[in-house]
Amino acid sequence: MRLSRYFLPTTKETPAEAQIPSHQLMLRAGLVRQGAAGIYSWLPIGLRVLRKIEQIVREEQDLAGAQEMLMSTVQSADLWRETGRYDSYGKEMLRIEDRHGREMLYGPTNEDMITDLFRRDVRSYRDLPMMLYHVQWKFRDEIRPRFGVMRGREFLMKDTYSFDIDAEGARKSYYTQFAAYLRTFARMGLKAIPMQADTGPIGGDLSHEFVILAETGESEVFYERVFEDLDPMGLNPRQRDSVEEAVRPWTAPYAATDEVHDPAACPVAADDLVTGRGIEVGHIFYFGDKYSKPMNATVQLADGRSAPVEMGSYGVGVSRLVGAIIEASHDENGIIWPEAVAPFRLGLINLKVSDERCTAVCEELYRALRVSGVEVLYDDRDERAGAKFNTMDLIGLPYQAAVGPRGLDKGVIEVKNRATGERREMAMDALIEWMTE
Amino acid sequence: MRLSRYFLPTTKETPAEAQIPSHQLMLRAGLVRQGAAGIYSWLPIGLRVLRKIEQIVREEQDLAGAQEMLMSTVQSADLWRETGRYDSYGKEMLRIEDRHGREMLYGPTNEDMITDLFRRDVRSYRDLPMMLYHVQWKFRDEIRPRFGVMRGREFLMKDTYSFDIDAEGARKSYYTQFAAYLRTFARMGLKAIPMQADTGPIGGDLSHEFVILAETGESEVFYERVFEDLDPMGLNPRQRDSVEEAVRPWTAPYAATDEVHDPAACPVAADDLVTGRGIEVGHIFYFGDKYSKPMNATVQLADGRSAPVEMGSYGVGVSRLVGAIIEASHDENGIIWPEAVAPFRLGLINLKVSDERCTAVCEELYRALRVSGVEVLYDDRDERAGAKFNTMDLIGLPYQAAVGPRGLDKGVIEVKNRATGERREMAMDALIEWMTE
Repeated sequence: MRLSRYFLPTTKETPAEAQIPSHQLMLRAGLVRQGAAGIYSWLPIGLRVLRKIEQIVREEQDLAGAQEMLMSTVQSADLWRETGRYDSYGKEMLRIEDRHGREMLYGPTNEDMITDLFRRDVRSYRDLPMMLYHVQWKFRDEIRPRFGVMRGREFLMKDTYSFDIDAEGARKSYYTQFAAYLRTFARMGLKAIPMQADTGPIGGDLSHEFVILAETGESEVFYERVFEDLDPMGLNPRQRDSVEEAVRPWTAPYAATDEVHDPAACPVAADDLVTGRGIEVGHIFYFGDKYSKPMNATVQLADGRSAPVEMGSYGVGVSRLVGAIIEASHDENGIIWPEAVAPFRLGLINLKVSDERCTAVCEELYRALRVSGVEVLYDDRDERAGAKFNTMDLIGLPYQAAVGPRGLDKGVIEVKNRATGERREMAMDALIEWMTE
Repeated sequence: MRLSRYFLPTTKETPAEAQIPSHQLMLRAGLVRQGAAGIYSWLPIGLRVLRKIEQIVREEQDLAGAQEMLMSTVQSADLWRETGRYDSYGKEMLRIEDRHGREMLYGPTNEDMITDLFRRDVRSYRDLPMMLYHVQWKFRDEIRPRFGVMRGREFLMKDTYSFDIDAEGARKSYYTQFAAYLRTFARMGLKAIPMQADTGPIGGDLSHEFVILAETGESEVFYERVFEDLDPMGLNPRQRDSVEEAVRPWTAPYAATDEVHDPAACPVAADDLVTGRGIEVGHIFYFGDKYSKPMNATVQLADGRSAPVEMGSYGVGVSRLVGAIIEASHDENGIIWPEAVAPFRLGLINLKVSDERCTAVCEELYRALRVSGVEVLYDDRDERAGAKFNTMDLIGLPYQAAVGPRGLDKGVIEVKNRATGERREMAMDALIEWMTE
């Protein structure tokens, strides 16, 4: 993409309404614009990041054996009456009345609706286990939306629902998702620590929240040092029968948020306990027949009896992750995107567009890299070099390649690693080869 | 995907609430389920089709130079007050009040919102022309939703907005989108005919609707025979300066819906006039400064003056297209998907799962085809052959490959083309080669 044609409005000033780094940087780097309190539109570069995060989440759900579908945003209030949640959910539910006066709502979550879809079409134990997920916009009418997309009202969530014939199967589904979540966050370059959690308004017996570490995180967290050396990418979520055992290195050690951590009762020696700050990016629940029983979602078992299906639900805050990743990865100059979610991999800077040689080299590089499938943002604007470097630092692409007259005299392009700040000089061919290897 | 593990609830019975073939078949073939009047959830096989259509639309927008972004579903009423549409839009607009009593709405279209985003960040003629688009759920509170996704309330739309400094530029943007639309529908295997149209509540001076031909279409259409031989795939929407001329073969001949067609005044000889039925799947508008003027969305021109930006909007009914394609392509046995939008390319039928040879061949075929990137739905269920053929005909995959003992005795697999009904026998290697060539 040529920056001269790209709708990427960046600003130097820190917007007064933004209190935390991710909110400030998402506005300054042109990722989002607020439409109303807690409601954002995604500009092109923000949407690219959102889609990359969504795609990683999707791939890991598919790998775990979940099937993608898509439920509507607007739901009928009747379903929520069956489970009693229409009255109990409170003011965070955005209630809507249609032109005929029928009570509807903008879905804040989908346990009730998926249970309805399940009971309509699934009859037999032979169809289980089953996991269904969707990636859809949700609405929670927060009383005080703030922190940008971190606590917005309209937000993009991936929510998965599992269906099993008994508690043993449901535990397997639960830990399958547990493994998928560890892999999902690791692929985004994040260190995610699962913490036993309260089940809150979703209900149920077993629950973990996944917290990523960020100096500017919303809550204080305490965890055993052993978490720092764990790598989940060897986990295979398809091995249902052994997955609970496989994730034990993540479930056995101590980890807790400040809400539940009690220093006096903590079983971990001070030397082994790490204190940090974290942001919740995922939450998983096993809640048995909490919804299937009142909604009469039963299956026939092998012995002919029928029983309510055992369920769990598993959420990832997709739009929240955009903010959370920035909280975990930025400096005073701007965002530092992990490669897996970066909107472009390389920023190509033409330091002097009036210089024919610079422009010819840039055009050739831009063409060659795109042909090879490298995602390049080409700053072809007629601006000062300093402004161009500042823009690239702000938007945080993993690599910057600066083409200027002095470098070309020596036959080199200066390449900077945004995360480490390391600079090296490379010939054009070497740069292309390195980017496409 | 293995059918035994796939959430694909099909039915033989025609649902009583469905009056038209696409609605009946989308329910019977397990594409969607209704949640409330005119509101549908997409089951896995339906979502696959929806995503393929969306992706074709996206690729053609990108090719035309439009930039993808994503606006929120919920909007503030304030924006719509600036253009006067909050009062004029009527009851089709779903009005919402949040917990603080603020007036909001679920966006039925986005002219007001995109004009607001534009005026906040774009200042100069140098940034134009610009085209922005998004693919997002919309809501129109139809008084009588019917015909399934063809006239639903919550629907997926691609809407593009163009911004130019003057009317001449705006015409170029308009015909750029015109060309993109012709290509978009052609890629889906559809014959789309552009018809001059009224501008209705969007407003403006120039408008076309794109109508695809289907025997069961909603309205009668009249068009010159010459349309039947036109192929738009040679059009290059990037050639802005010549695109109006390039699309003249589609703009010059006569075409009209029954709403405007007057037999007495029709300029076309009876022999050259074709009468058929059609379904509107796209609508494009040039409306100048209708929104930019009241909202004060101006840019500075080269001579220093400032002027309201000239705009157009361009909509494709993405979810509607799923129904429209079925109306255009089905028979008494079920759906006949055009290859470009089919949920899977091949249905692999194991005619006798208890036969080790059949199962071994099927497993090997399934593995080999998936490794080569062929999308296969493998019917590995323990069902009668007749039921399996019926399911495959109903869901309408382009090709069916049936593996049975008698065929294997001869070393062949029977392959059926769903559209033509043509059957041929092929060796396993030949089938793999043909599917992956």
